[in-house]
Amino acid sequence: MTATATPPALPTFADVEAARARLAGVAHRTPVVRSRTLDAQVGAEVFLKAENLQRVGAFKFRGGYNALARIPEAERHRGVVAFSSGNHAQAVALAARLLGIPATIVMPRTAPVSKREATAGYGANVVLFDPSEDAREAVAQRIVAETGAMLVPPFDHPDVIAGQGTAAAELLEETGPLDALLVCVGGGGLLSGCALAARAMSPGCRVIGVEPELGDDVTRSFRTGTIQRLAEVPATIADGARTLAPGALTFPLIRAHVDEMVTVPDAALVEAVRFLLLRAKLLCEPSGVLALAALRSGAVRATGRVGVILSGGNVDPDLLRWILLDDDARPATPPAP
Amino acid sequence: MTATATPPALPTFADVEAARARLAGVAHRTPVVRSRTLDAQVGAEVFLKAENLQRVGAFKFRGGYNALARIPEAERHRGVVAFSSGNHAQAVALAARLLGIPATIVMPRTAPVSKREATAGYGANVVLFDPSEDAREAVAQRIVAETGAMLVPPFDHPDVIAGQGTAAAELLEETGPLDALLVCVGGGGLLSGCALAARAMSPGCRVIGVEPELGDDVTRSFRTGTIQRLAEVPATIADGARTLAPGALTFPLIRAHVDEMVTVPDAALVEAVRFLLLRAKLLCEPSGVLALAALRSGAVRATGRVGVILSGGNVDPDLLRWILLDDDARPATPPAP
Repeated sequence: MTATATPPALPTFADVEAARARLAGVAHRTPVVRSRTLDAQVGAEVFLKAENLQRVGAFKFRGGYNALARIPEAERHRGVVAFSSGNHAQAVALAARLLGIPATIVMPRTAPVSKREATAGYGANVVLFDPSEDAREAVAQRIVAETGAMLVPPFDHPDVIAGQGTAAAELLEETGPLDALLVCVGGGGLLSGCALAARAMSPGCRVIGVEPELGDDVTRSFRTGTIQRLAEVPATIADGARTLAPGALTFPLIRAHVDEMVTVPDAALVEAVRFLLLRAKLLCEPSGVLALAALRSGAVRATGRVGVILSGGNVDPDLLRWILLDDDARPATPPAP
Repeated sequence: MTATATPPALPTFADVEAARARLAGVAHRTPVVRSRTLDAQVGAEVFLKAENLQRVGAFKFRGGYNALARIPEAERHRGVVAFSSGNHAQAVALAARLLGIPATIVMPRTAPVSKREATAGYGANVVLFDPSEDAREAVAQRIVAETGAMLVPPFDHPDVIAGQGTAAAELLEETGPLDALLVCVGGGGLLSGCALAARAMSPGCRVIGVEPELGDDVTRSFRTGTIQRLAEVPATIADGARTLAPGALTFPLIRAHVDEMVTVPDAALVEAVRFLLLRAKLLCEPSGVLALAALRSGAVRATGRVGVILSGGNVDPDLLRWILLDDDARPATPPAP
């Protein structure tokens, strides 16, 4: 016996399949959208998996629900805790409500009121902390210690990863084998889950992760073979990808199953949000179009049949108004949230 | 023989079915979108037929393509003409390109450059006229006289009406019988075609047309039993519903097959565009949410299973930026196009 905690085993495609069964009838089976204009522009047959139309507006519901559904009945009364001011917060809050589990979501006091209200609207107990005074981990540990609640991490958890992988599994079930699959990357939960599905369901498919240029922790880790940690929170408009480092589970999965990591500048995210909204009539947040932007900007050249995960659509109206300005009228810095 | 032209016979459901066969594999089968939030708010099971995701971004492609596909091969070289600066222009331009028919689209010189470019981008010959000097009918007649081209009216044509009806036919095929179907109304082409489909496929379904309060020509005509003509182009933000009067074909079809006409104020359109975009992540133009706004504003109370046609998503970025302002920050008048 040692005092060192054993990391949980890496999830497999069987876990993705089990997650699909749990999510059936609970998560939306989101549509796969085609655009002939896009196909002509990039020279490929592109299949857009519209996870912006998922419950809570993002793929995060898949992983959150899968993780909560795996909590044994006898332990559910203790509740769950999550730290997030983004889509993970709403995902855990809604999954908890559906499963009858008390949920506490810890957010910085600086989080937009709209996000606090949306999360509270799903019935979660929202706890605010002052990011200049309290480390959020300390707030977390206090709640866990007081209540025995389970901490639901945003990406580095086998059930979360397996849940996110169901997005690619659904896509591949609908399209059949693909030549390439492009997936956006924050901490790598979506990418590693989707890579598990692609390896099993479409073995010849090139799996490509896409990060913002300003937050390239996973790309640098992938290229060097060891986890690289950013010194500070990256200032990209892709707020869902402002992670500092890949996780202890997501990183080995990405190394094992992903073919390539690329980055795109924020300007390419603005272009892709505009295209998707004004031409395809779908709203995505900047983090949600990372994969699409890689294709449209030429960062990735792909031919044949190409899958793209659109990951989320929760965008602040002021940020959207900034994106909708003409390029020559748009200030360099987006409005503060 | 008399000199009076006989009006064409009214289309029937058989014409809608024939249009479906023509559109198969050409028009998108647009998704039917659900929102649990919406259902809870309005107290009904709502099925949103997302015609904003149709080719050219609006249902208009259905009617335009159906009308052009009916032109005999031997007559196609003469071409087609349409008068529109909106979705009908792009619909006819694209349908003409697909069928190899020369198309001339007549637009006022005041039409936004983006619309002129989009229409020209589909390969149409765009002819501008000065609305202060030339009547557009005169421009039309000149082109028809010179070329023998066929005029494709935006709504008052049996093949256009039958084509638009395929939107409701697809919806009803997917949902089964509905308790109510809400359809937006400009000149009534979509409404009359959809009413034909609803009567045949879901006989108990209440069919409701929705107009902007400021442009209530069809509602007033429906209530009085005779065609009422507005004195001037209504100043509603629903630019697809700025018609002056219902047509000689659409009006009798609406009287025969529609149960109710209601109106909604422009403020309800703003609210519905915002809800659909920020919550359901779908972009619709103000005209496109007329039916949804009737439900959300309480202008129509419907229970049970309710179909709503979302008709189009082509909205100018500046108008969208105005809509995205908070209610208390939004100037009363939208930006000029």
